[in-house]
Amino acid sequence: MKNTQILLANRPEGMVKESDFDIVEQEIPALQHGQVLIKIHFISIDPAIRGWMNEGTTYISGIPLGGVIRTFSAGQVIESKHPNFAIGQFVEGMLGATSFAISDGTGLKVLDISKGSIPQHLGILGMPGMTAYFGLLERGKPQKGDTIFISGAAGVVGSTVGQIAKLKGCRVVGSAGGKVKCDYLRSIGFDEVIDYKNEDLDLELRRKCPTGISIYFDNVGGDTLDTALLHLARGARVVICGAMSQYNDMKKVCGPKNYMKLVTARAEMKGIIVFDFQNEYPKAVKDISTWLQEGKIQSKEHIIEGIQNFPQALIMLFEGKNFGKLLVGVH
Amino acid sequence: MKNTQILLANRPEGMVKESDFDIVEQEIPALQHGQVLIKIHFISIDPAIRGWMNEGTTYISGIPLGGVIRTFSAGQVIESKHPNFAIGQFVEGMLGATSFAISDGTGLKVLDISKGSIPQHLGILGMPGMTAYFGLLERGKPQKGDTIFISGAAGVVGSTVGQIAKLKGCRVVGSAGGKVKCDYLRSIGFDEVIDYKNEDLDLELRRKCPTGISIYFDNVGGDTLDTALLHLARGARVVICGAMSQYNDMKKVCGPKNYMKLVTARAEMKGIIVFDFQNEYPKAVKDISTWLQEGKIQSKEHIIEGIQNFPQALIMLFEGKNFGKLLVGVH
Repeated sequence: MKNTQILLANRPEGMVKESDFDIVEQEIPALQHGQVLIKIHFISIDPAIRGWMNEGTTYISGIPLGGVIRTFSAGQVIESKHPNFAIGQFVEGMLGATSFAISDGTGLKVLDISKGSIPQHLGILGMPGMTAYFGLLERGKPQKGDTIFISGAAGVVGSTVGQIAKLKGCRVVGSAGGKVKCDYLRSIGFDEVIDYKNEDLDLELRRKCPTGISIYFDNVGGDTLDTALLHLARGARVVICGAMSQYNDMKKVCGPKNYMKLVTARAEMKGIIVFDFQNEYPKAVKDISTWLQEGKIQSKEHIIEGIQNFPQALIMLFEGKNFGKLLVGVH
Repeated sequence: MKNTQILLANRPEGMVKESDFDIVEQEIPALQHGQVLIKIHFISIDPAIRGWMNEGTTYISGIPLGGVIRTFSAGQVIESKHPNFAIGQFVEGMLGATSFAISDGTGLKVLDISKGSIPQHLGILGMPGMTAYFGLLERGKPQKGDTIFISGAAGVVGSTVGQIAKLKGCRVVGSAGGKVKCDYLRSIGFDEVIDYKNEDLDLELRRKCPTGISIYFDNVGGDTLDTALLHLARGARVVICGAMSQYNDMKKVCGPKNYMKLVTARAEMKGIIVFDFQNEYPKAVKDISTWLQEGKIQSKEHIIEGIQNFPQALIMLFEGKNFGKLLVGVH
């Protein structure tokens, strides 16, 4: 039994490249007391990985050069010397881009498979789903009749925000790139969709949000944020969740030059850090899994098979070529 | 009796120039029923004037070419055919850059001279003072022990915010340009002062706000806003009041590229539009005039004599060469 691992070969400048990674095979060391051995089934491909590949800052420690790429991953316990974990349990944690992981249990969460599949536990029932739930409800504070605009709407966060906003009585407008993603958004109940690759965002926002945007849920930053600011309704809430367009070069971030619109629109801009709501995750998981089971919301996963395809999967994420929550399947 | 008026000759590109104005003498027309004639004593020089000189937008109508420059001005009623205004009363309103103004009473406010001088009524007891009061108390929400950082601190808004924040138990740090203004800020009780013309803002904020900024009151925008964002304490409030560094060229506004710090600091960014608090002005005027009379806060006015010096006064404002609330005195 060999362990395939994805290591950080270089700190990327700008866009990640395949040459930034090394793929190695390692022996699996013998398990120590207090440890569990996990066969990884899925590795979650998240935008945050790009930040972890940089040198550390005061609030984020970088992955060391030559270290295993940090990821959320999930799998099954196949050996345990830890009293809290038993063989056969499904678990999730920051286990890295690896086919086998050894954990001392820190941050390791046992998954309740009755609530959803393992891919769902890494997506709509995991960090992205929690981000959508608390970002919308606690920061966006949706009211019946509000118009919400969501950028990066076809992503797991965006599509979950949109579907929950519909349940809360909002008019939901989303932007995504290309016809396929836009059709998908319509199929899950978005009222209006803007194809940012083929349509003029400013013009379409004027048409599709004629009374302005009450909540802007920003997953992308850059020009989209700037344009959305111009369309804020009075009293709007801007929820900064991500800046997908900016992650590959945080040194040249494009700031929102229309930020003064916050003043005239009496709007507020806030971020969402999902970890602040950790104590409330169980309620969110219960709500979302119930909505899933009742068919009120849907999830979509995009699985790239084979751990050796991890680098390509991450590149795909930043090129916006995935369609649904992106995961690497590990055999 | 001739009426000297300052007219808009050109829409300025970038910084205002003397050639953007015409100075003319006009006859004063006969007063109609329902009108009052006001001898202007002081014209308020405010950053907003620069915006009004541009072509209008959906939410601000521009001054027409050849029209009288829009300003807040104050003076004395010398003739009245309006039942609500009597000869001898001191009044204030959007009366323009003119030595005599005719008003139908719309927006005209009778001044209570027992509460402060006419210059004070255009400054610390007028729109700038109200902006400081509500911007700090309603948007900044100061708590005892908070560290507040104020840019453009030597201006009437900034110095008033700082003094009220001291009364509310905050540690007050301000930035201003040059030793004279910095010394002034110390003399009115600022705990720490940063001379942005001669000191490194980032370094000084690290030194002078070692636990971070709880409230950032932004009067200037640009690089100062960007740097301040990096020093936000957890849960900080960013109050966008002005963007003095940006008004002369709103087409090339520099957006805050560090806006993602709002996310990591769990901070919020909001604006202040003073007119939203119009119904509460009397309470603010009462509080501020009481503090002035008790010597708990101080005001400072900078008066340029002669209406013909209006263009130079406005240029002075944008060059940061005034020291205190800038007014043009009209004889």
